[in-house]
Amino acid sequence: MTFRATILTLYPEMFPGHLAFSLAGKALERGQWSLDTMQIRDFAEDRHRTVDDTPAGGGAGMVLKPDILAKAIDNVSEGDDLAPGRPRLLMSPRGKPLTQERVRELAAGDGVVIICGRFEGVDQRVIDARNLEEVSIGDYVLSGGEPAALTLLDAVVRILPGVMGNALSGTHESFEDGLLEHPHYTRPQVFEGREIPAVLTSGNHAAIEKWRLEEAKKLTAERRPDLLKGK
Amino acid sequence: MTFRATILTLYPEMFPGHLAFSLAGKALERGQWSLDTMQIRDFAEDRHRTVDDTPAGGGAGMVLKPDILAKAIDNVSEGDDLAPGRPRLLMSPRGKPLTQERVRELAAGDGVVIICGRFEGVDQRVIDARNLEEVSIGDYVLSGGEPAALTLLDAVVRILPGVMGNALSGTHESFEDGLLEHPHYTRPQVFEGREIPAVLTSGNHAAIEKWRLEEAKKLTAERRPDLLKGK
Repeated sequence: MTFRATILTLYPEMFPGHLAFSLAGKALERGQWSLDTMQIRDFAEDRHRTVDDTPAGGGAGMVLKPDILAKAIDNVSEGDDLAPGRPRLLMSPRGKPLTQERVRELAAGDGVVIICGRFEGVDQRVIDARNLEEVSIGDYVLSGGEPAALTLLDAVVRILPGVMGNALSGTHESFEDGLLEHPHYTRPQVFEGREIPAVLTSGNHAAIEKWRLEEAKKLTAERRPDLLKGK
Repeated sequence: MTFRATILTLYPEMFPGHLAFSLAGKALERGQWSLDTMQIRDFAEDRHRTVDDTPAGGGAGMVLKPDILAKAIDNVSEGDDLAPGRPRLLMSPRGKPLTQERVRELAAGDGVVIICGRFEGVDQRVIDARNLEEVSIGDYVLSGGEPAALTLLDAVVRILPGVMGNALSGTHESFEDGLLEHPHYTRPQVFEGREIPAVLTSGNHAAIEKWRLEEAKKLTAERRPDLLKGK
């Protein structure tokens, strides 16, 4: 079963964006995943194709209307014979922070439906009524959900079966065991007076593994003590 | 002074990607920011244009060579008459998590030089020798630094002077005061039996502000108690 991503957006032209190239792009060409976009504006009902309105209670910005977005979401659900039950993600800085664990769960499934907000936000009632899972890719504010959706898909697609081939197997990655990755070195042996740490060229595999784990722990403790909590 | 982004990458074709459209795209056309890419491979010295090599100490994956990357970085620095002293960011899951505060700092500066890693990683010595600032956009692993660079630029560009115009002024945003944003509502008054909270249509601005702040605090406490620490 091919992993299927459906994007609800006001900017379908932003897709596949960077996902057209390299790993994700080749996998898309090979049919290892599929991407379709749906223009939310197509579900507007007036002749101006209005999708947003002023916020109740006042204030700047515009809010995506619940009725229009619900119709777009329902249209995807109704046509979803290929991959029913896909998680419906709303990209939003208010959401649960995306983790590599959630990326792996998503990659193990049939696909995702991703709703990209724009403007000031999305009416809360459609989030509740359609049980949207709010997902945040980080603690910063983007112009809309599209860059976040593309980022999430990049993370998911790279670990789909067959996409990276042997490139992934056996490698240690950040967050795999809750640690940041150890430092890397390659030739030349000396770069601007800086040598590769001796242990790495010792040929002693046990010592190398031990050094890498210690470096990963040290780096994590220095930079991200939050990741070590509960360990 | 125009905000200037220079990207060092093995995939220049991924840029401007989604930044060609909507807010960022219009701002790019208007010259409110500029984007140039540099192909790291152009600094390789052998006829195969090799940029990576096997990791010292063994293991899968390939490591970006320090000498080649240093040359590419130095080439940017030497030609950087327009915006010298720009921060040099290396997008990496090992980096310091990007925050809206850092986004605002970057947007207040002359620009950024962003180095996009690929493969298993970048030789640690070039990170040290060129004083690269490792930045992470979230706790997940991407195919390379490019999606992260595009995401960071989207966050920065939207708050550059003039880019959003009045759209931004007066709005409350997630992380502005360390809180997630309150829920939004707009017409219709009733959506699938769900009403807009009465306070929002009361016309009592003080009560509305109070409700929004309380909702923001409640949501943050529920979803992101980590943001409230130290408050």
